Amino acid sequence: MVVVMAGNASEESTANVIGKLTEMNFDVHRSTGVNQTVLGAVGDKRGLDPRLIEVMPGVQKVVRVSEPYKLASRTVQPEDTVIKVKDVSIGGDKLVMMAGPCSVEGRDEIREIAATIARAGASVLRGGAYKPRTSPYSFQGLGEEGLKYLSEAATENGMVSVSEVMESGQIPALLEHVDILQVGARNMQNFSLLRELGKVRKPVLLKRGLSATIEELLMAAEYIMAGGNFEVILCERGIRTFEKYTRNTLDLSAIPVVKKLSHLPIIADPSHATGRRDKVAPMARASIAAGTDGLMIEVHQQPEMAMSDGPQSLYPEQFQKLMGELEIIAQAVGKKW
Amino acid sequence: MVVVMAGNASEESTANVIGKLTEMNFDVHRSTGVNQTVLGAVGDKRGLDPRLIEVMPGVQKVVRVSEPYKLASRTVQPEDTVIKVKDVSIGGDKLVMMAGPCSVEGRDEIREIAATIARAGASVLRGGAYKPRTSPYSFQGLGEEGLKYLSEAATENGMVSVSEVMESGQIPALLEHVDILQVGARNMQNFSLLRELGKVRKPVLLKRGLSATIEELLMAAEYIMAGGNFEVILCERGIRTFEKYTRNTLDLSAIPVVKKLSHLPIIADPSHATGRRDKVAPMARASIAAGTDGLMIEVHQQPEMAMSDGPQSLYPEQFQKLMGELEIIAQAVGKKW
Amino acid sequence: MVVVMAGNASEESTANVIGKLTEMNFDVHRSTGVNQTVLGAVGDKRGLDPRLIEVMPGVQKVVRVSEPYKLASRTVQPEDTVIKVKDVSIGGDKLVMMAGPCSVEGRDEIREIAATIARAGASVLRGGAYKPRTSPYSFQGLGEEGLKYLSEAATENGMVSVSEVMESGQIPALLEHVDILQVGARNMQNFSLLRELGKVRKPVLLKRGLSATIEELLMAAEYIMAGGNFEVILCERGIRTFEKYTRNTLDLSAIPVVKKLSHLPIIADPSHATGRRDKVAPMARASIAAGTDGLMIEVHQQPEMAMSDGPQSLYPEQFQKLMGELEIIAQAVGKKW
Amino acid sequence: MVVVMAGNASEESTANVIGKLTEMNFDVHRSTGVNQTVLGAVGDKRGLDPRLIEVMPGVQKVVRVSEPYKLASRTVQPEDTVIKVKDVSIGGDKLVMMAGPCSVEGRDEIREIAATIARAGASVLRGGAYKPRTSPYSFQGLGEEGLKYLSEAATENGMVSVSEVMESGQIPALLEHVDILQVGARNMQNFSLLRELGKVRKPVLLKRGLSATIEELLMAAEYIMAGGNFEVILCERGIRTFEKYTRNTLDLSAIPVVKKLSHLPIIADPSHATGRRDKVAPMARASIAAGTDGLMIEVHQQPEMAMSDGPQSLYPEQFQKLMGELEIIAQAVGKKW
Repeated sequence: MVVVMAGNASEESTANVIGKLTEMNFDVHRSTGVNQTVLGAVGDKRGLDPRLIEVMPGVQKVVRVSEPYKLASRTVQPEDTVIKVKDVSIGGDKLVMMAGPCSVEGRDEIREIAATIARAGASVLRGGAYKPRTSPYSFQGLGEEGLKYLSEAATENGMVSVSEVMESGQIPALLEHVDILQVGARNMQNFSLLRELGKVRKPVLLKRGLSATIEELLMAAEYIMAGGNFEVILCERGIRTFEKYTRNTLDLSAIPVVKKLSHLPIIADPSHATGRRDKVAPMARASIAAGTDGLMIEVHQQPEMAMSDGPQSLYPEQFQKLMGELEIIAQAVGKKW
Repeated sequence: MVVVMAGNASEESTANVIGKLTEMNFDVHRSTGVNQTVLGAVGDKRGLDPRLIEVMPGVQKVVRVSEPYKLASRTVQPEDTVIKVKDVSIGGDKLVMMAGPCSVEGRDEIREIAATIARAGASVLRGGAYKPRTSPYSFQGLGEEGLKYLSEAATENGMVSVSEVMESGQIPALLEHVDILQVGARNMQNFSLLRELGKVRKPVLLKRGLSATIEELLMAAEYIMAGGNFEVILCERGIRTFEKYTRNTLDLSAIPVVKKLSHLPIIADPSHATGRRDKVAPMARASIAAGTDGLMIEVHQQPEMAMSDGPQSLYPEQFQKLMGELEIIAQAVGKKW
Repeated sequence: MVVVMAGNASEESTANVIGKLTEMNFDVHRSTGVNQTVLGAVGDKRGLDPRLIEVMPGVQKVVRVSEPYKLASRTVQPEDTVIKVKDVSIGGDKLVMMAGPCSVEGRDEIREIAATIARAGASVLRGGAYKPRTSPYSFQGLGEEGLKYLSEAATENGMVSVSEVMESGQIPALLEHVDILQVGARNMQNFSLLRELGKVRKPVLLKRGLSATIEELLMAAEYIMAGGNFEVILCERGIRTFEKYTRNTLDLSAIPVVKKLSHLPIIADPSHATGRRDKVAPMARASIAAGTDGLMIEVHQQPEMAMSDGPQSLYPEQFQKLMGELEIIAQAVGKKW
Repeated sequence: MVVVMAGNASEESTANVIGKLTEMNFDVHRSTGVNQTVLGAVGDKRGLDPRLIEVMPGVQKVVRVSEPYKLASRTVQPEDTVIKVKDVSIGGDKLVMMAGPCSVEGRDEIREIAATIARAGASVLRGGAYKPRTSPYSFQGLGEEGLKYLSEAATENGMVSVSEVMESGQIPALLEHVDILQVGARNMQNFSLLRELGKVRKPVLLKRGLSATIEELLMAAEYIMAGGNFEVILCERGIRTFEKYTRNTLDLSAIPVVKKLSHLPIIADPSHATGRRDKVAPMARASIAAGTDGLMIEVHQQPEMAMSDGPQSLYPEQFQKLMGELEIIAQAVGKKW
C-alpha cells in the first residue's frame, strides 16, 4: 500500500498515519519530497479496506499495491489453466464452442438441436433449466426435468453439458446431471452461491456481471477458488453502458486484459451481449480474433417460437455457416477447433 | 404494443407481422401513413419479449405500451403505500431514519451505538450479520448470533430492526429476530431470493442494483409482490458511472421518478453511495430535499476500528448534528421526523 | 509519481525504470519490500503522461501524486473565490439564481420573462442566442440580435446576463453585450475555445461535459485560468449513465467534491439534467441542500410554444413557488438569496 | 410519432393531445384499446422535440417513428458510400490502413516513420499538428509547419494524409496541406465546426464522442452532409464506461450497427480505445473480424520518446507483424488490403 500525503499535510498528520499503519503491522518506508511525503507500507493485507487510511487527516490518496485476488492471479500461477471435462479441453490451443437453446423446452426439442449443433462442431451443449427472468410472469424453466433432458441429449451426441445454477439449493441436481455449472451475470456477486460452488468438484462457468469491473470478476473467481475449486471458466457477456442500440456492450478488450492478469480461461457470449441475432456473427468472429478461448452461442431450431431469448438465437443454418467462418479466423490467431 | 414498420417494408412483411400478432392473440389496428405503417397491438401480454417482433423483416421498432410491472405501479394503486412496523410508519408524512453500524460486531457494541442513535432520533436500527463482502478474505459477519444482538439492542431502545438476507436459507433466522429484511444491491436480481421473500409476511427493504434501471428496480419489487408480500420499501444507494471520486453516483432524481411511477416508499442511503464520511451529510440533506421517505445511514462509535465500511460511517456526534440539520430541511418540504 | 513494480519484476527492469525516471529529472526513492518494490519519483512534471512508465517491462502500476491542475486547486488557494459581476456575487454566502428561457426568441418575449423572474428573485438572466442543436434542422438561435435583446432585458430589470459562446469567432459579440460567457457541456473540452476565453476579462460559466470526470472539469477550468482569466464558475448539469428515465443523471455529489478540491464556485442546472419540468423543483431543492452556490433554471412564459427545451422549462408561477421553497432550504444550510 | 396515452387518461386529455398534434400539422390516427389509447401522428417533423407532447397531461410515452437523420441513413441511400482520395478507396471491399505518429514531431521524424509504415502496407499517413490536449501544460503541436511535413512525407511515399482540425480557423491550412480532415472525439458535437466542414470539399473523418450514442454520431455526420459535403468517414474509438483497466471501451458492435443504419464507411481506432500498446493488436484483429472498413493505428519509431501518446504507439516491427496477421483475418471476412 502506498499512502500519498497532501502537500499541506502537517507533520502530526503524517506521524498519525505512520502510527496507524504500524499498528496494523505494516512495515513503513517514508519518502519525503520537496512538495509531498509518500509512505510505502509493506505487509500482506488482502482483506484490508484502503479507505480506512484514506479518510485520515492529511491523506491525499491511498494506492493498493498488491492485487486483491491471489489464486486467480497470473503472478501466482504463470502458466494457463486448462480445464478438462471428459474429452473437452477449455483454455488450451483448441477453441471450445458451447451452443444450444436459451432454455431446455422439452426432451425432443433439446435432442434435435443437440444433434444439429454437434454436427456443426460444438462440443458443449448449453440449455437453461432454472431461468433467471426479469419478469415474474415469464417462463421460469423446466427445473430438474430439464437438466435430465439436457444431459441425455449431450451424451447422445458425445458432448458435455452446461446449465445455470441460481441458488445453493439447486447444486445437488446440477451435480447429478450436468458437467459444468454456470453462474449468471446477475449472480456474479451472489457470494453465498459462490462460496458453495467452492466446495463443488465440477467446473464453474462464471459470467461477468452487467456492471462488474474485470477486477471484480476475478474476485468472484477467487471466492470459488478460495473454497478449493480451481476450475473456473470466465465469460465476457457484455456490460451496461449508455448505448441502447445493442442490449449490452460486448467489452472485447476484457479478453486480452484477463489473459494478462489471470491464468484462467475466458470465453465470450455474443448472444447475450448483443441481444440481436444479426449482430451475433460479427461479434463471434471478433471474439476469436481478440483471443478468446471459446464461445457460448444460442441456437434454436425455431427461434421465433422459443420460450426465451428467441430474438438472439441463431437458426441452425446460420450457426453452421458461422462455424465455417470462425475456423478461418481461428487459424489466423494460431488456434483450431 | 406499437410496431413501427420501416419506410421501405414490403406489404408482405407487414402482413406477416399482423399475422404473427394475431396468432399471439393481439387485436391489431393498422395505421398507414405516407411514409410508414404503424401497427397498434392491443392485449394483455406482460411477460412477452418485444424483440420477437422486432427481429421480423421490415420492422423498424417495437414499443411496449404497458409497463412491465403491475402491482408496483401507481396506475394500479394511486395512493401511497404506508408500511407500519410496530410504532414506525414508512412512506407517510413522517420521515424515517434507519441508522447503525455496517456490521453487528458484538453485543455491547451494538447496544451502545443503538442507545446513541435512538437518542438522536433514529427509529430503525440497522446492522449486518450476514455480510456480502467482495473479498473472501474479509470479515463475513457474526451470523445468527449477530441478529440476536441486533434485535435485543433495538428492543431495548424502542426501535425496530433491519438486517440483510443473502440467501433463502437465512430467511428463518431473519424472520425470528428482525423486523425488516434487507436485500442488498448485488442481490437485487437474485430472483430465487426475491421469490422466497414473496412468501414472507414481514417488510422487505430492496436496494437498487449498481447498474439497475429504475424499471428493473420496480420489476424486482414486483417479484416480491407477485408472491403476496406487498410491503416493499425501495432504496436508492448509488449507481455505477465513470466518475471515480465517489464510490458510486447517488441518483437522486430516482426519488421523484419512483414517486411518480409507483406507490411504494423509497429511502436513500448516502453512506454506500458516496463511500466517504465527509460526503454523507450533504447527500443526506439533498435526499430529504428531493423527497425521500427516509434515510439509511451508517454510524459507528469508532469508525476507524470498524470491521467493515468504517470510512463511510459517521461518528455519533456527526450523526447527531446531521439530524438537527435534516429537521429544518424536512420542514421545508412539508415533512417531519 | 509512485511506480509499483510487479512482484516478479527482475532487478534489470527495476534498474531500467529508475534510469528512465532519472533521465526525466525525477529524484527517485526506492523502497524494497518482501514481495514488491515501490519507487517514489519526486519532481514537478505537470504535462507528463504516466503511461510512459506504465508500459515499461516489470511495471505493475503508476500513480500520479500531484493533481494535474494547479490554479484551480484549493491546495494553491485555500479560500473560496467570489466572483463579482456588477451587484451580483457568485461563490459567497449569498446564493445566485440564473434563470430565463432556453433561447432568446424575440425582444418582447425576453423582456416579459425577465421582468417576471426578476420579481421572483433571480439576479442573472440567461438566454441562448447561439444554440448548439443536435439536429441541423432545428432552430439555431437569433445570433447577435438575440444578445442585444438579452442585454437590454437584463439591464431594464437590474439583472446581469449570461449567454453561450460556441466558437472563438463569437467572443467579440458576447463581450460587447453580455456579462458572463457560458461554455456548453459539449464544448467543455473544446480546447481552442477554452484557450481564447483565457484571454477574456469577463467571467466564464463552464458546464461539465456529459461524460466528463470532475478532474476533467477542473482541467478545463485550468485551461481558462492558465490564460489569465481566473473568473470561472463551474456548473454540474447531469452526466450520461445507463438510466434513461431522466435525460441525464444529476451528480449532486460533485458539489461537495468540487468544494473540497477547488476554490471555484459551482452551481447546478436541474433543467438540463432532468429534461422534464416536473423533476426540476425536487432537484433544485436537493442542489441547494447539497451545498451549491447557485442554480441555473429554464423558465418560459409559454413553455409549450418554446422554440427549444420547452418541456424542461418551468411556468412563471412554478418558478415563483420554487423560489419560496428554496429560501427555506437555503436557511437550513446557512445561506440566503 | 406515436403517442401512448396513460391507462387512466381522461377523454379531455386525449382530445387536447389530438388538438395539439393537429395544430402542428400532423395527421392523427386514433386507436382505442380496452386499457389504453394510442395515437399515430403522421407528418414530416425532423427538428421536433417529442418531449413537447410527452409532458402533456395524460401522456405516458411518445415514440419517434422516423430516424432523426436522413442523408446519413441507409433508408435514403441503400448502397455503400465509397470515398476515393487519390488512389485510396474507403468503404469498398478493400480495407484501408491509416497509421502514423500521434503528433508530427519534426520533418525527419515523420518522413522516417512514413517510409516504414508505407512499406508495411499503410496507405494513409496520420499525424497531428493541432493537438487537443487535456492539460494546457502539454505539447500542443507544430501547427501549420507540421501539416507541411506530414503532406510532404505522405507524397514521398505514395500515401494520402489525414490530420485533425480543432476549430474553423484552421480549416484553410488543412485544406491546403492534407487530404482528409479529422474531427476528434471531443469535437464530435462542436456544431460550429461541423457546419463549416459541410462547406468543405474534402473528406472528413469523424470520431465518435466518448459518450456519444450511435444515433448522435450519425446526427453529427448529418450536420456535415446537410452542408453539402457527403464524404464522411465514421470512426469508432472507444466509449467511456466504468471499466478503468483500459482507457476506454472499444464498442465493436457499433460497426455492424452502423453498417445497418447507414451507408457511410466506418473504421476503428484501437490505439485511442485501449490506450496501451499491448492491447492494440488483439483489438485491431477483432475490428477487422467485426467488419470495419479500415483501421487507424498509432506507430512511432521510438514510442518511449514520443511527445504524445507514446504508451499506445506500436513499434515499427510490431506494426509490420500486425499487418501480416490482419491480412489473414481480412480474407476470412472476404476483404483484402
